[in-house]
Amino acid sequence: MNIVVQKFGGTSVRNLECQQQVMKKVLRLCREGNKVIVVLSAMSGETNRLLNLASKWSENPDRAELDSMVSTGEQISCALFTMLLKQQGVKARSILGFQAPIITDDAHGKARIISIDDKKLKELLKEYDILVVAGFQGCSENGRITTLGRGGSDTSAVALAAAVNADICEIYTDVSGVFTTDPNICADARKIERVAYDEMLEMASMGAKVLQPRSVEFAKKFNVTVHVRSTFSDEPGTIVTQEDETMESVLVSGIAYDKDQAQITLVHVEDKPGVSAQIFSPFADKKILVDMIIQNPSKDGKTDMTFTIPRDDMELAIKTLESLQYEIGFKELNSNLNVSKISIIGVGMRNHSGVAARAFQALADENINILMISTSEIKVTCLIDDKYTELAVRTLHKAFHLEEGEPIEKS
Amino acid sequence: MNIVVQKFGGTSVRNLECQQQVMKKVLRLCREGNKVIVVLSAMSGETNRLLNLASKWSENPDRAELDSMVSTGEQISCALFTMLLKQQGVKARSILGFQAPIITDDAHGKARIISIDDKKLKELLKEYDILVVAGFQGCSENGRITTLGRGGSDTSAVALAAAVNADICEIYTDVSGVFTTDPNICADARKIERVAYDEMLEMASMGAKVLQPRSVEFAKKFNVTVHVRSTFSDEPGTIVTQEDETMESVLVSGIAYDKDQAQITLVHVEDKPGVSAQIFSPFADKKILVDMIIQNPSKDGKTDMTFTIPRDDMELAIKTLESLQYEIGFKELNSNLNVSKISIIGVGMRNHSGVAARAFQALADENINILMISTSEIKVTCLIDDKYTELAVRTLHKAFHLEEGEPIEKS
Repeated sequence: MNIVVQKFGGTSVRNLECQQQVMKKVLRLCREGNKVIVVLSAMSGETNRLLNLASKWSENPDRAELDSMVSTGEQISCALFTMLLKQQGVKARSILGFQAPIITDDAHGKARIISIDDKKLKELLKEYDILVVAGFQGCSENGRITTLGRGGSDTSAVALAAAVNADICEIYTDVSGVFTTDPNICADARKIERVAYDEMLEMASMGAKVLQPRSVEFAKKFNVTVHVRSTFSDEPGTIVTQEDETMESVLVSGIAYDKDQAQITLVHVEDKPGVSAQIFSPFADKKILVDMIIQNPSKDGKTDMTFTIPRDDMELAIKTLESLQYEIGFKELNSNLNVSKISIIGVGMRNHSGVAARAFQALADENINILMISTSEIKVTCLIDDKYTELAVRTLHKAFHLEEGEPIEKS
Repeated sequence: MNIVVQKFGGTSVRNLECQQQVMKKVLRLCREGNKVIVVLSAMSGETNRLLNLASKWSENPDRAELDSMVSTGEQISCALFTMLLKQQGVKARSILGFQAPIITDDAHGKARIISIDDKKLKELLKEYDILVVAGFQGCSENGRITTLGRGGSDTSAVALAAAVNADICEIYTDVSGVFTTDPNICADARKIERVAYDEMLEMASMGAKVLQPRSVEFAKKFNVTVHVRSTFSDEPGTIVTQEDETMESVLVSGIAYDKDQAQITLVHVEDKPGVSAQIFSPFADKKILVDMIIQNPSKDGKTDMTFTIPRDDMELAIKTLESLQYEIGFKELNSNLNVSKISIIGVGMRNHSGVAARAFQALADENINILMISTSEIKVTCLIDDKYTELAVRTLHKAFHLEEGEPIEKS
């Protein structure tokens, strides 16, 4: 039994015409002899409509009730789509999170999938040719409806593909695949044919918003091949899969950026054991995500501490630190809201040196000052003045010949 | 543990202000030490909105998918209402049909309740002070969402009251109770304090649309006392309960009417065994509900057959009969769309004669001709020309002194 999972997002199912387009894609696969699991999001706008409604009822709506409410978006799109299929005489039915069941923990609003009843799904696939499964939702062990967080339908799709050993998990979206960088900034941006899970994770978490990062983690863990492609064309998109030799022969796969950054420097912090914990523990308590951190070499028992946080958290962060000035013992707090983060990403870096240097040189050639640097095995990240963001993206894209899909031999 | 079930219809929960009103009623009971099961309908207009949406997708939408879709109306109203309660610090949660669970058969769109897990509900009532249960919906034994048909939330409420042995089942609606007749037609119509299940059944099925007939059957079967009352006042409404002596001391409790009637007469039908079956079996196949039937005494082996059907089915009925004219062997088919049905209802009739005669005389005094008559133990029904409907209702209301709640001694 060949099984294919196809996931369609909110814009792909937003009205009757779009759903008819989607149906054609699904029926084609079906006619080729595949069993198909279709995973749908809510019709675009619906989830926001429901969230707005709830916010009128309560400033801080009960999370479990909110999940029960917003999950109706997928319930409706799945029922409608299945009606279309049934009208064509197809053996199909809709399946909600509690029916599959897709068991999650009870962290309402950001639940994690614990297990999927693969036996039941396989039984259903014997009876039906197409199963239309509600994305984004699951069911806690005590039977309450949960949701997986924004973009959770991607994770639903990959998890279902893993559960039933699907041949492939196709994620249909309104872009045609994963690009070397944002085409809105860089006209030379090119669609990537194949990308490794780890590269995709770095790109996703950097704001290349094609796939929910959790879905990529899932795909990596269960080795699910994901095909990201456009609902509105038949062109192949981008395959997200295990790292292989052809990938390693490319130095850099893509350039990501994130403008949602702010920088804080604490000047003349007393350099004593435990001072970092003293600074960052209160941030953790307040759910402020600290990203890059630099501690300067100590001088006269004092050091400077610089770090970045999401821009929206700046006010809260400053208040928090000021209230702790006496305990932490810093002299001055400098902040900068006008920074952005640029990353070059590629599994090819693992085995090749000189990548960071080439990036720094390219930025220097354009007089772009680097404020902070952070590196990992497959990523080099620079913090820069945010007015240079677009220029930096284009400069790095060109420096690594991404418009040509540069093979490593040239470097 | 005192348990009260309170059911609120669509107009009672249609917006935030209405739900706040409802909350006051619920919290009052709660403060008095009761555990409360609140049963809610969808916000008014929502079910129709969803049905309209589905009708755009499919001319004949799959019933199971339609159930999954329309059940979201109650899912949303219950989540919103529970958010309000939680904000007040009340121990409350919403419960959907599949969560209770309320098990039904799988007749999607008009499912019947088979069982309710009373143990689970009683457990939940230990943990929570208020359970907000979605009306109108259940779950088939194979786990699919079902709905109980229009007005099904009344049945949900009564069934829940029966399951947990509630002290009372309050049905809140936009009228203040059950009336002796339609107040829009008869200014003297009076709210009835207590009405027997059987009387209520006759009134409900005759179009006094206060309670879904199935809910009354359920109440009768499990002896649940139902209190029909207004959401928008604190006045007591009408108690629907077991027949008792005070009820029997009243000759007639109410006058019902139904304008949705049409009459057909087949002239010179061959009077042979099986001819009735020959006429009415095709009607059953086509789901045409035949109501009153009269067969005239036979003469020369021929008889006339007269019956009533819902007005909308007239065309289909005539087509059906004409196609069978040869087999049935009738000479002529006469039809009349301008008829209506008037009934006087009362358990007091069981032990008192002369009720029918008094009704006939009252109608005759106003020159209203009676086309057909049908009687049961607690009901006398007359078919009349529909232009006399309002006059007939007022005449009979007066003839039985319903404006005073006439005790039997006067008759």
